[in-house]
Amino acid sequence: MSWYNENGPKSEVVVSTRCRFARNLSSYKFPSKMTSDEANRLIGEISDTFFNSNASFKDEFSLTKSNEVSREELLTLFEKHLISRDMIKNPLPSAVLLNRDESVSIMLMEEDHIRLQVILPGYQTKEALKTASDFEKLLDGRFGFAKDENLGYLTACPTNLGSGLRISAMLHLPALTMTKRIGHMLNSVGKLGLTIRGMYGEGTEARGCLYQLSNQVTLGMTDEEILTKVNSVIDQIVSIETKLREDILKANETEIKNRVMRSYGILKNSYSLTSEEAIGYLSDLRLGKALGITDSDYKNISTLLVKGSPACLISEEGLLDPLARDLRRANLAKEIL
Amino acid sequence: MSWYNENGPKSEVVVSTRCRFARNLSSYKFPSKMTSDEANRLIGEISDTFFNSNASFKDEFSLTKSNEVSREELLTLFEKHLISRDMIKNPLPSAVLLNRDESVSIMLMEEDHIRLQVILPGYQTKEALKTASDFEKLLDGRFGFAKDENLGYLTACPTNLGSGLRISAMLHLPALTMTKRIGHMLNSVGKLGLTIRGMYGEGTEARGCLYQLSNQVTLGMTDEEILTKVNSVIDQIVSIETKLREDILKANETEIKNRVMRSYGILKNSYSLTSEEAIGYLSDLRLGKALGITDSDYKNISTLLVKGSPACLISEEGLLDPLARDLRRANLAKEIL
Repeated sequence: MSWYNENGPKSEVVVSTRCRFARNLSSYKFPSKMTSDEANRLIGEISDTFFNSNASFKDEFSLTKSNEVSREELLTLFEKHLISRDMIKNPLPSAVLLNRDESVSIMLMEEDHIRLQVILPGYQTKEALKTASDFEKLLDGRFGFAKDENLGYLTACPTNLGSGLRISAMLHLPALTMTKRIGHMLNSVGKLGLTIRGMYGEGTEARGCLYQLSNQVTLGMTDEEILTKVNSVIDQIVSIETKLREDILKANETEIKNRVMRSYGILKNSYSLTSEEAIGYLSDLRLGKALGITDSDYKNISTLLVKGSPACLISEEGLLDPLARDLRRANLAKEIL
Repeated sequence: MSWYNENGPKSEVVVSTRCRFARNLSSYKFPSKMTSDEANRLIGEISDTFFNSNASFKDEFSLTKSNEVSREELLTLFEKHLISRDMIKNPLPSAVLLNRDESVSIMLMEEDHIRLQVILPGYQTKEALKTASDFEKLLDGRFGFAKDENLGYLTACPTNLGSGLRISAMLHLPALTMTKRIGHMLNSVGKLGLTIRGMYGEGTEARGCLYQLSNQVTLGMTDEEILTKVNSVIDQIVSIETKLREDILKANETEIKNRVMRSYGILKNSYSLTSEEAIGYLSDLRLGKALGITDSDYKNISTLLVKGSPACLISEEGLLDPLARDLRRANLAKEIL
C-alpha cells in the first residue's frame, strides 16, 4: 500500500514521512559532468546489479526510465512524492527503481547518481530510516560509494555532504496556519538547523495547510543524530498543533464545525472541482477528522489529494482539458469520500 | 395542506398565488377612527356571524386574536403570508379567521374592517379568486359592505377603492435576476398597472430571487378583468423566465450545475445556517429542480423557507437566540430536504 492509500501513526498531523540518501559512485563523474552514454551505462550497471542482488527484487521492483515515459507519467510520480523535480529536470537520461507499494524509490541520475528514498504514511521516521539504511548498505556493498574520510559521503551539492541524509515529514498544520503562528514556527525551526516550507505555494499561507519539514544540516552528524533532532521537532510541532486545534474548536465551535461539514458537503456534491478548491476543502476535512467532526478517513483524503492532482488525471486518465479534469475530480471526490 | 406544504401548477416559477378582498361594514367607522371597544365589538360581531353561517366552520376555522397571542405567533402567520404587516402593526385589537389548511384567512381590523384572503400553492389565481369570491358573497349577504354606486367598494386607502381586489403571485425569477433583466421587467410591469417587488429586500437584486407580482389598479375594473390582466402578465413572465433558464443552462452548464449541487451539499451538511444563507441556497435548489439537476421537491423548499424563518423558529420552537436558530435551521434542512 502506498503512503497515500494507508493510515499511519499520528496521521492527524503527520501525513507522511520520508528518508532519502544521496550517494555517488567513485567510478563515474558527477551527473552534471556526464554524457548521455555514461548516464545510460550508469543506469544499466546499477539496475542490473540491483536486480541480481536479490531474486525477489524482479517481482517487487520496476525500472522506469525518464526517456521511455511521458512527461505526465513523471509528473504523476512527482505528485506522489516518489521522484524529485530535479530528476524530471535532468536533460540526461534518468530512471527510478520503484517497489510495488511505492514505499521505496531509488532514483538514478538525479542531481546525484543515486537518491535512495523511503516514504511511509504517518509518523514513521525511524522505520523509514531503517529501511533506507538497509538498501543503502546493500548498494554500498556492491559499489562502494564515494566517500571522504573527514567529510563523509561526497555529493553534487555541498548541502548534502556528510551523511547525505534528508529526513522529512509532510505536516498538516491548519491551526498554526489559521492563527498565523506558522510564521514564527518557520523562524524557530530554521534556528534549529531544520527547514519548513509550504507543499503548495511557498510562504506562510500554504494552500491546504500542508508543510514539508526537513533537516538542513547533513555534515558532521550521524544518521541517528539527524533522526533524533528531526523527531524532537516533529514531536514539538505535533504537540503545539494539537493543542491549538483544541483551543480553536473551544473558541469557535460552531464556525469550525460548520466549515468542516460544509467542505464535506461541497466535496460530496460538486459537479466540478478545481485542484485548488479540492486542496482547501480536503484540508478542512482532515482537520474535521482529527477533531472528531467527520469520519472521513485520512487515507481517503490523501488518496483524493494525489489522484485528483492534474498530473495524475492527465497520465492515468488522459484528461488533457482542465475543465474535464475538474468534472472528473468532482466525481472522484464522490467516489473516494 | 398549506401552500408551503404542497406543490401546485407551474411551481417551477410560481411559488404561490393569492387573492384578497378589502371590505368594510357601513355600520362602523374605518379602523383608523375606531376605539378599542369598537374594534372588539366588530371582531365579535363578524366572527359570531361567520361561525353561525355554516355549521362546519366551527371545525374548519379558528379565530386568533392579536391581543391573545405573542408577537412571534403573529410574525409566524406573517411569514406564512396568512396575515399582513398592517394587521400586526394595528395598535387596536385585530383578529384572523383561519381555516385548517391555511388557504383562507379573513383578517378583521386590518387597514380595513375585513381583508379576505385565499392563498394557494403554484399558479392558481382563478381558483383562489373563485374561493375568495364565495366567502366574500357569504359575508356581503350577512353585512352589506360599504359601497358607492360609482366608485364601487369603499376602502380605507384609495389604492384599494373599487373592486378592493388584489391578485398576487410569488414568483421565483433566478434567471431574470442573474441576467439583470429584472430591472427592465419591473419597469414594463409598472406600465401595465401592475407592480413587482422583492419578497426579501426591495430592488432589483431580491434575496432568494423571490418576487411578488400584483395588480396596482383596482378602480374601474371588474374582478374578471383584473384576473385576466394579472394572468396575462404571469404567463409572459413564466415564459420569459423559463426560456432564459434554458439559455443560461446551455451557456453555463458546468457553472449552474455546480452551483445547484454545491448549494444542496451545503444545505444538507451545514452545522449552522443563517436565514439569509438558507434563502439563497434554497433559491439555487428551486432552480436546480426546475432544470432537472436535483430532485428536491418544490414543496420541501417552500416548507424549509417558512419553517426556517426566524419568526417560525421563535414561535414554534421557542428559539430566542439567533445562533440557536441557525443550528436548528441547519438541522431542519437535513430533515426536510
